[in-house]
Amino acid sequence: MPRPVLTGSEERPSVGAIKNARHPFYEHCEDTLDRIRQQGRYRTFTPLARQAERFPLYEEEYPGLPEGREVIVWSTNDYLGMGVVPEVQDAAIAAIRDHGAGAGGTRNIAGHSPLHARLEAELAALHGKEAGLLFISGYVSNQASLQTILSSMPGWICFSDRLNHASMIAGIKGAKGSSTVIFEHNDLADLEAKLAAAPVDAPKMIAFESVYSMDGDVSDIGAICALARKYGALTYLDEVHAVGLYGQEGGGVSQRDGVADQVDIIEGTLAKGFGVHGGYVTASAEIIDFLRSTASGFIFTTSLPPSVVGAALVSVRKVRAENWRREALFERVATFRQRLRAAGVPFTMTDSHIVPIPVGDAERCKRISRRLLNEFGHYATPINYPTVPEGTERLRLTPGPFHTDEMMDDMVRALATLLRAEGLMPTREVAQQLA
Amino acid sequence: MPRPVLTGSEERPSVGAIKNARHPFYEHCEDTLDRIRQQGRYRTFTPLARQAERFPLYEEEYPGLPEGREVIVWSTNDYLGMGVVPEVQDAAIAAIRDHGAGAGGTRNIAGHSPLHARLEAELAALHGKEAGLLFISGYVSNQASLQTILSSMPGWICFSDRLNHASMIAGIKGAKGSSTVIFEHNDLADLEAKLAAAPVDAPKMIAFESVYSMDGDVSDIGAICALARKYGALTYLDEVHAVGLYGQEGGGVSQRDGVADQVDIIEGTLAKGFGVHGGYVTASAEIIDFLRSTASGFIFTTSLPPSVVGAALVSVRKVRAENWRREALFERVATFRQRLRAAGVPFTMTDSHIVPIPVGDAERCKRISRRLLNEFGHYATPINYPTVPEGTERLRLTPGPFHTDEMMDDMVRALATLLRAEGLMPTREVAQQLA
Repeated sequence: MPRPVLTGSEERPSVGAIKNARHPFYEHCEDTLDRIRQQGRYRTFTPLARQAERFPLYEEEYPGLPEGREVIVWSTNDYLGMGVVPEVQDAAIAAIRDHGAGAGGTRNIAGHSPLHARLEAELAALHGKEAGLLFISGYVSNQASLQTILSSMPGWICFSDRLNHASMIAGIKGAKGSSTVIFEHNDLADLEAKLAAAPVDAPKMIAFESVYSMDGDVSDIGAICALARKYGALTYLDEVHAVGLYGQEGGGVSQRDGVADQVDIIEGTLAKGFGVHGGYVTASAEIIDFLRSTASGFIFTTSLPPSVVGAALVSVRKVRAENWRREALFERVATFRQRLRAAGVPFTMTDSHIVPIPVGDAERCKRISRRLLNEFGHYATPINYPTVPEGTERLRLTPGPFHTDEMMDDMVRALATLLRAEGLMPTREVAQQLA
Repeated sequence: MPRPVLTGSEERPSVGAIKNARHPFYEHCEDTLDRIRQQGRYRTFTPLARQAERFPLYEEEYPGLPEGREVIVWSTNDYLGMGVVPEVQDAAIAAIRDHGAGAGGTRNIAGHSPLHARLEAELAALHGKEAGLLFISGYVSNQASLQTILSSMPGWICFSDRLNHASMIAGIKGAKGSSTVIFEHNDLADLEAKLAAAPVDAPKMIAFESVYSMDGDVSDIGAICALARKYGALTYLDEVHAVGLYGQEGGGVSQRDGVADQVDIIEGTLAKGFGVHGGYVTASAEIIDFLRSTASGFIFTTSLPPSVVGAALVSVRKVRAENWRREALFERVATFRQRLRAAGVPFTMTDSHIVPIPVGDAERCKRISRRLLNEFGHYATPINYPTVPEGTERLRLTPGPFHTDEMMDDMVRALATLLRAEGLMPTREVAQQLA
């Protein structure tokens, strides 16, 4: 056993003094929470029960109202509303009736149903890859895959986009023996300079996303893959906010741009565009079998319940076949932006379906969100640090096929009122210039 | 950007040579898989669909048999069969009908339903703690909680039982700035010697389990907590294989032994004794709020589907109230052991509900399991490295309330036949001495 090094403190309490004393971690928790509160970024979760038959209406649990009250939610990641499509719900219900509420074991310990294998084949087909592998979440699919790959050979260098998701960072940082080079967000020149500066013979990976969820901007996958070929790097692409939404069959931006075959590993989720739960990666047969056989976060965990897998299978098949769902989404997003613009409500224009409303201050962001909910019955999550950098706080709106024109008008009026009260609406002159 | 250090290779391929070449990771995958195959530990998953109404009967997907064939499963972690209790299934189905197939967002982004809060309160009550926090799995609850806590203050020393689960090791190893001291499995003298050798003023944690799942042995929680008090260590207890099964209300071994109040953090799962899916921790209000506010693996992931949470809530309440379920489990385990003993089938006697059959060789372990399935219609997972150390390969059986006397007799006969064929049955003389 390595004996820990003494910290050099002169006054050391005796064992007797420590006995029964409160562990210092408790005070550390209190201090951390105080600091978070002082910074105005203490999070309280709004209790919202989705009304499956009336989506995007939710019931907010409200003190004194036994039935709660109805609110319109603008912050769901179930972008297409697939989670409330009756065939998807029916598939989940049938699997619960047939197979029970949980999987009952890991994939290796009686938790591998034929549904799991079928869904993995379907996801591989969606992305044009040889094989797919389910994980219990998108977070875990990124963390476990990246950590396992980057720990596999000595000297890996991971070139990681500065705005990559926390789950990718967790996997990249968690890898043993690899080094990380962060390139500026979506900056191809910076990426190439950094690739060129690295040792030619080190195993390299470029890890990036297609749609960046908080800013809603989109990467140039083809150009990044060209750099990867030039410098011999493996490509790992997170399509979590794109699967189901982009491409002829919802295969993501890599499918839309016709470059999926140039990406080595495509990661996605079943919990956003497909409306259910869980995550996955798709790649060549040997990479998937390697992850299946060695990734701790895949091996040592109960597999997804058959109800989740059965519902996801139906959802993926429908989303692949029914392009009208994607068209409906983007028509709604365009209409919503038009109405925001007409009312002079500032928003960040993006190449995706995501509509950020910049606020720039945690307290203010929470206040606007709270008033929106309490006074107007609309819910939009305040996005603060650590989800986005401090100073870039925002509301993040994701209008979808189920948001009606009337809901949009009502929401736009509410936003205009609240942003005006915060001094965040442009003056009439600026608004006219923008229009 | 830190420029990566050159690796010292003399022969460096030019950029042109690397361009379009296959990335070396592909060959690494193939080599690794070849090695795993050569070691006889390549895993293939048996496709098994649980028959909810006939548990522990499963349907094995079988080439040429469109309906599959029926097998009896002895390796489920749904120890009490709660996943097929009609009220639990009904709760899942009601939640899907009411709220859809998925949560649609993180806890902070419209994915926090009133069901989530109710289940967390129920789990806190189960363990006599102030608060609870749901994670998407037991694996993530361990990994995220341990990594977050052990990264929180400088100089943490984690005293970790040698046989702790992979998810705990992932969290402990993933922490930044902490050091780890591994103590011999369930060895209080070794633990105390190592605690005494550590600097008195370093923040300490003892991380351990109650029931160790592969050997089925049980730790002395009270004695470990006494050492924790003496040396000022925080206690983190994994009760994953004990919740639902031990204690007056299924609060685990810590409840059975009356020492739950001495443990700082109790971690558990909803996917084994409670038969559903997901994981959790319970602790004091400030620790839970700290994890809720800072743990990346909690914050940045879609929350558990309402159907999972609703089903788990009903399951936990039933398991707390219905002690007969625990009694039925232990009666069945005792009966099964009795019959194994009577037939001279060697097994490892444990203080828990787990019945390991030692085999000691990966190929042989797989062969027995395959023949058991193909020739006798019983399924018991072969447990090989990396789940257990090489040389300690085994079948791990978990008889439960749904295994009948007839199933047991049939299984014992099959095991005796197969172990005899492998030379693993004791001679008649030894068997008589053991009897």
